[in-house]
Amino acid sequence: MILALAGGVGGAKLANGLAQLLGPSELVIAVNTGDDFRHLGLHISPDLDSVMYCLAGVNNKETGWGLAGETWNFMEAMKRLGGPIWFKLGDGDLATHVERTRLLTAGKTLSAVTATLCERLGVAHRIVPMSDNNVATIVRSKDRWHSFQEYFVALKCEPAVMEIKFDGIEFAKPSPMLLATLESKELEGIVICPSNPFVSIDPILAIPGLRALIDQLKVPIVAVSPIIDGRAVKGPALKMMKEMSLEPNAIGVARYYWHLIDGFVLDETDSHLAREFETFRIRTVFADTIMKDTNDQKRVAGAALKLVADLRARE
Amino acid sequence: MILALAGGVGGAKLANGLAQLLGPSELVIAVNTGDDFRHLGLHISPDLDSVMYCLAGVNNKETGWGLAGETWNFMEAMKRLGGPIWFKLGDGDLATHVERTRLLTAGKTLSAVTATLCERLGVAHRIVPMSDNNVATIVRSKDRWHSFQEYFVALKCEPAVMEIKFDGIEFAKPSPMLLATLESKELEGIVICPSNPFVSIDPILAIPGLRALIDQLKVPIVAVSPIIDGRAVKGPALKMMKEMSLEPNAIGVARYYWHLIDGFVLDETDSHLAREFETFRIRTVFADTIMKDTNDQKRVAGAALKLVADLRARE
Repeated sequence: MILALAGGVGGAKLANGLAQLLGPSELVIAVNTGDDFRHLGLHISPDLDSVMYCLAGVNNKETGWGLAGETWNFMEAMKRLGGPIWFKLGDGDLATHVERTRLLTAGKTLSAVTATLCERLGVAHRIVPMSDNNVATIVRSKDRWHSFQEYFVALKCEPAVMEIKFDGIEFAKPSPMLLATLESKELEGIVICPSNPFVSIDPILAIPGLRALIDQLKVPIVAVSPIIDGRAVKGPALKMMKEMSLEPNAIGVARYYWHLIDGFVLDETDSHLAREFETFRIRTVFADTIMKDTNDQKRVAGAALKLVADLRARE
Repeated sequence: MILALAGGVGGAKLANGLAQLLGPSELVIAVNTGDDFRHLGLHISPDLDSVMYCLAGVNNKETGWGLAGETWNFMEAMKRLGGPIWFKLGDGDLATHVERTRLLTAGKTLSAVTATLCERLGVAHRIVPMSDNNVATIVRSKDRWHSFQEYFVALKCEPAVMEIKFDGIEFAKPSPMLLATLESKELEGIVICPSNPFVSIDPILAIPGLRALIDQLKVPIVAVSPIIDGRAVKGPALKMMKEMSLEPNAIGVARYYWHLIDGFVLDETDSHLAREFETFRIRTVFADTIMKDTNDQKRVAGAALKLVADLRARE
């Protein structure tokens, strides 16, 4: 069994690749919920939705988020009414938020709600939130703290990030399935998806006790670089790295993950960095890691799984 | 100044006719909120929306409710997710419910929210809720009480109604504008729209103190019959009359309103009932009261306003 740690779009793509290669009992995808927020009375889980929509095959491949064939009448009407329109909510996507909120209000956990939504969308693989407790990623620019969506959507990632916190993390427990997976004897490896290390993967790892659990494991941990040829495929990862004085390339990512990972999948355009990686005790593999379609996703997932297998064979 | 008491579709039509003939300072439309309910976390005010959409000219003329040019992607997605779909919510209509709920949650009164929404939709005439307090119409069929929307939408008005109550009415106050209008020296008459007497008009009249205020007024009160030629134009009014052992025609309505109204506008197809009305001390006027378009609405509104003027002249 493989545990994947995933954030939004990049995480969803690799998770989908893994789901093409592994059966539903062979994969658990634990998803960041630090981006979750309440908006217009609705509980919105952007990363869970990205992964769920992608595995259900209903994701919008052009925008990278939301549903395919989406319509925007709600937003148009909201604009006419002078309501808040900074966060885009498609007509079909709204149903996910309304139904999630309805089930949460009825007392279900986020894990249970996610399982229900996945079942309804025909997703057989297990997509689980990192935690059933509320955790809110907040970022500081100079003297102001911003909620993550304020920073990410309303401010378009423009402020320089000085500090990141996960509000409520001290009370968060790993979701039951994430905990059970980490404690399972079936677990063969962990794959860290090409998601933003600071706001997608770190919130998961920051759950009290989780890092200690992972450190005790004897299974390989492999990350896929979200930075390709010195560029982030999507989102503010590279900009954040610069603001945090990390080397703004795949090496910066590897260094950030140094004490955590055993293997690292990089894009072949970064092969000139190979020699620099020799200073790390991290096994590296170069591959074409751009994921434009399902075949690409399978290819990158295959490279990550092969690296896990190779690392297991060496032990 | 004229005060109109209105429920849903029929009320909206006459209210729009009155708004064509009277200026924004000459008309206050007080709307039933006994049908209001919370659904999927949203505060839904069906009658306020019907009147507001109609006066804004954005109402769906085919269905009689909701917005023109509506799309249904939210409902489709909700169906796919296995969520509740018994109450139809259009994509654009949803924005009204979400924005109303957001403003109510922020602490605004329903009156203030309605004024904001009307302003945004370009409605200059004053549409006000009967009350800013929650009142819920409930109906009893044999030994079970149903919420109004359960009876009206989910059960399609099929159960025989034995009893009607307005839950919370004992704590309800008239909305500030309704109260101010009833206390205004400018008030020249009250028009009861062709709405369901039992579940659209009665909730308004049942607000503690309201009936006493109306009884003290010296202005004519005129009703337009919701029953035409022994048929309800829309909704369960006639069926309810039968179940309540009222004569199932315009006379039954007039008798129900007997101690309240001074004038009654009936459809010309009911002119054969003229002699029977002689036993009431109610001035009756016969007109073509079918309202298919704005011209029809103006014609019926004109008949009601003329009856108010005639009754004032006689005093």
